[in-house]
Amino acid sequence: MDLEVIRELVVKNDTKIILLVIDGLGGLPRPETGRSELEEANTIHLDRLAADGLCGLTVPVGTGITPGSGPGHLALFGYDPLKYKVGRGVLEALGIDFDLRREDLAARGNFCTLGSDGRITDRRAGRINTETCTALCEDLRNISLPGVEVFVLPVREHRFLLVLRGKGLDDGIADTDPQRLGLAPLPAKAERPEAEASARLVNDFIAKATKVLADKHPANGLLLRGFSRWPDVPQMGDVFGLNAAAVAVYPMYRGLAKLVGMTVLPTGTAIEDEVATLEEHWQDFDFFFIHYKATDSRGEDGNYEGKVAALEEVDGIIPSLRRLNPDVMMVGGDHSTPSLLAGHSWHPVPFVIAARWCRPDRTEAFDEKTCRAGGLGLMPATSVLPLALANAQRLMKYGA
Amino acid sequence: MDLEVIRELVVKNDTKIILLVIDGLGGLPRPETGRSELEEANTIHLDRLAADGLCGLTVPVGTGITPGSGPGHLALFGYDPLKYKVGRGVLEALGIDFDLRREDLAARGNFCTLGSDGRITDRRAGRINTETCTALCEDLRNISLPGVEVFVLPVREHRFLLVLRGKGLDDGIADTDPQRLGLAPLPAKAERPEAEASARLVNDFIAKATKVLADKHPANGLLLRGFSRWPDVPQMGDVFGLNAAAVAVYPMYRGLAKLVGMTVLPTGTAIEDEVATLEEHWQDFDFFFIHYKATDSRGEDGNYEGKVAALEEVDGIIPSLRRLNPDVMMVGGDHSTPSLLAGHSWHPVPFVIAARWCRPDRTEAFDEKTCRAGGLGLMPATSVLPLALANAQRLMKYGA
Repeated sequence: MDLEVIRELVVKNDTKIILLVIDGLGGLPRPETGRSELEEANTIHLDRLAADGLCGLTVPVGTGITPGSGPGHLALFGYDPLKYKVGRGVLEALGIDFDLRREDLAARGNFCTLGSDGRITDRRAGRINTETCTALCEDLRNISLPGVEVFVLPVREHRFLLVLRGKGLDDGIADTDPQRLGLAPLPAKAERPEAEASARLVNDFIAKATKVLADKHPANGLLLRGFSRWPDVPQMGDVFGLNAAAVAVYPMYRGLAKLVGMTVLPTGTAIEDEVATLEEHWQDFDFFFIHYKATDSRGEDGNYEGKVAALEEVDGIIPSLRRLNPDVMMVGGDHSTPSLLAGHSWHPVPFVIAARWCRPDRTEAFDEKTCRAGGLGLMPATSVLPLALANAQRLMKYGA
Repeated sequence: MDLEVIRELVVKNDTKIILLVIDGLGGLPRPETGRSELEEANTIHLDRLAADGLCGLTVPVGTGITPGSGPGHLALFGYDPLKYKVGRGVLEALGIDFDLRREDLAARGNFCTLGSDGRITDRRAGRINTETCTALCEDLRNISLPGVEVFVLPVREHRFLLVLRGKGLDDGIADTDPQRLGLAPLPAKAERPEAEASARLVNDFIAKATKVLADKHPANGLLLRGFSRWPDVPQMGDVFGLNAAAVAVYPMYRGLAKLVGMTVLPTGTAIEDEVATLEEHWQDFDFFFIHYKATDSRGEDGNYEGKVAALEEVDGIIPSLRRLNPDVMMVGGDHSTPSLLAGHSWHPVPFVIAARWCRPDRTEAFDEKTCRAGGLGLMPATSVLPLALANAQRLMKYGA
């Protein structure tokens, strides 16, 4: 649904909406038992929610498409992930809690190893440890460029973040990483005339950095990818009329929430901390995005039992959330992360909405097969937010 | 899904994908029994595949739209049939195995009967037999036009194919068939300035042909429709990274496969020949389209029992295909051809995919009602190919 259509229908009221995102929620059945992680887990509160509410499966991007975290969340927040894109540099900045500003130009960096002829011999500099990376970033941070501030921050191992801050920066710059060994790093090349000046600044940085790194073998070179700026995404307050808050332990999810205009609430490191944060701010917002990460982490580890345990852990917070008596209570996922695949996947994701005005279906459990048979069927993840607004009676009639 | 999105995500690996297209697969229940052809047929191997895999119904073009063979197949091959169109002239050329080239201008021709006043008295020249048509085409083939080669080939009864071959031909030419009796054939009229020269050539042909035909009553005139050229369709190798092969007995399906860049494998006239051809070339390709025609033919004949028998025949090849151990095994149809309607129809078409990473559903049979309750639900036929690529692990993650 076009956001402009939604924007014109939005009305405000004092309803409250909770969206619990269980990262990597969907799974696949283990061949030995034929049961997925969700089917195996003892999730009585989610099952109860499914029985009370309306279930379905969300398709984050499209049939067969495996989403990254960015597209997966943007879709749940109501934004078409094929239209609104978050560049790799920006995502890297969000992931380390860097205070990215609208004028910033961000890129993801790799330290690499260059041979005496200047050609790449290792694109990851032997995966140097994070301490070494941190020390190298300290050195590079002293580079000065005309008219812009330079930030160089360690991410993990050989990965770092480069941010230039200043007026008129443009992200139409091609990667300097040739993605192959035996080639020299490419110069930063403008992909459009407006990016010429920015590309010159980046090349100036590369030249100075390469001098600093000359004796730092194996990390004697650098590669830059995903030049990007803060994406121009309509804000949730403007388009959906929601005063939205985000509660997430991991920085990337806080960052994605910030991109769409949510207020990020400081919280602790456990799911109980997140619940306490939400409870504490219950009066202050009308939409709450609360993020649970461990399901995705265990799935990516290929740890079936671990994912089952994580599902049971997050199941335990449902009563606390429901006790707040939200007008709309939703649970979904940004994508599937089946532990059998040990990674994100294209499979549709279980979803449930419970609200006074839901037309109930016959679902009595919260798992992949049951949700498929639910009243919502297969639906684009971008429909979640309009559905929430409707159930909160925050959308007027379309047309007379 | 935009093909450009898919193209950027494609990776190659050594997986193998089979798509068996059972032409006109879907049907309707016979009132006496309430059972469709698929429900009536004893198709144990298809049922087993459905139990092992994931089922749904494909919508070839859109709700309520009855597809021709071109749109039906293009959709299954991953191409939006509303965007990529195959003209009638081109389809006619493909249907008789004419070696159509990119510079050719093709049109479908009808011999017709003209009265002494030059007006049409029979648009099909009394359905002259194919031998007569062949003889007439021989005569017309001798017509020479400046700067182009002329091909005139019999199709069947009163139908023939006209192809002009040369530089700079343009297919923006309106039909010369007024589609009504009592009118004279229309002159070929350019629909855009670039087609003026081509229209003049066609009118030159018509004038010369009309002279040749003057004494050939009832076939003393001709009508031309569907001027078209080889459509500009992205090739499967480029967009999907697939080295694809086609096995089909009938020329039109071989031609449609050729349009999207498949290699057409020579085969015999029986379904067993097709299977043998596929087996023989199993090592040479990573995608195999294998086409079965009799279901559609019996459906078009209005022959319910015949279609049931054809379904049982094609069911018999499933074990041979599965023995090859494809990574992705799919069975679908280009459209429905219910024998009760004796023609193509708009009804969604049963589809099944079996692959290691499918999330299984609860389907235990392969028929219209059971597929509707399958995990894929109703889906656009254009989703078949992305789904196959995902299950073959040939698509990277979208976004970070």
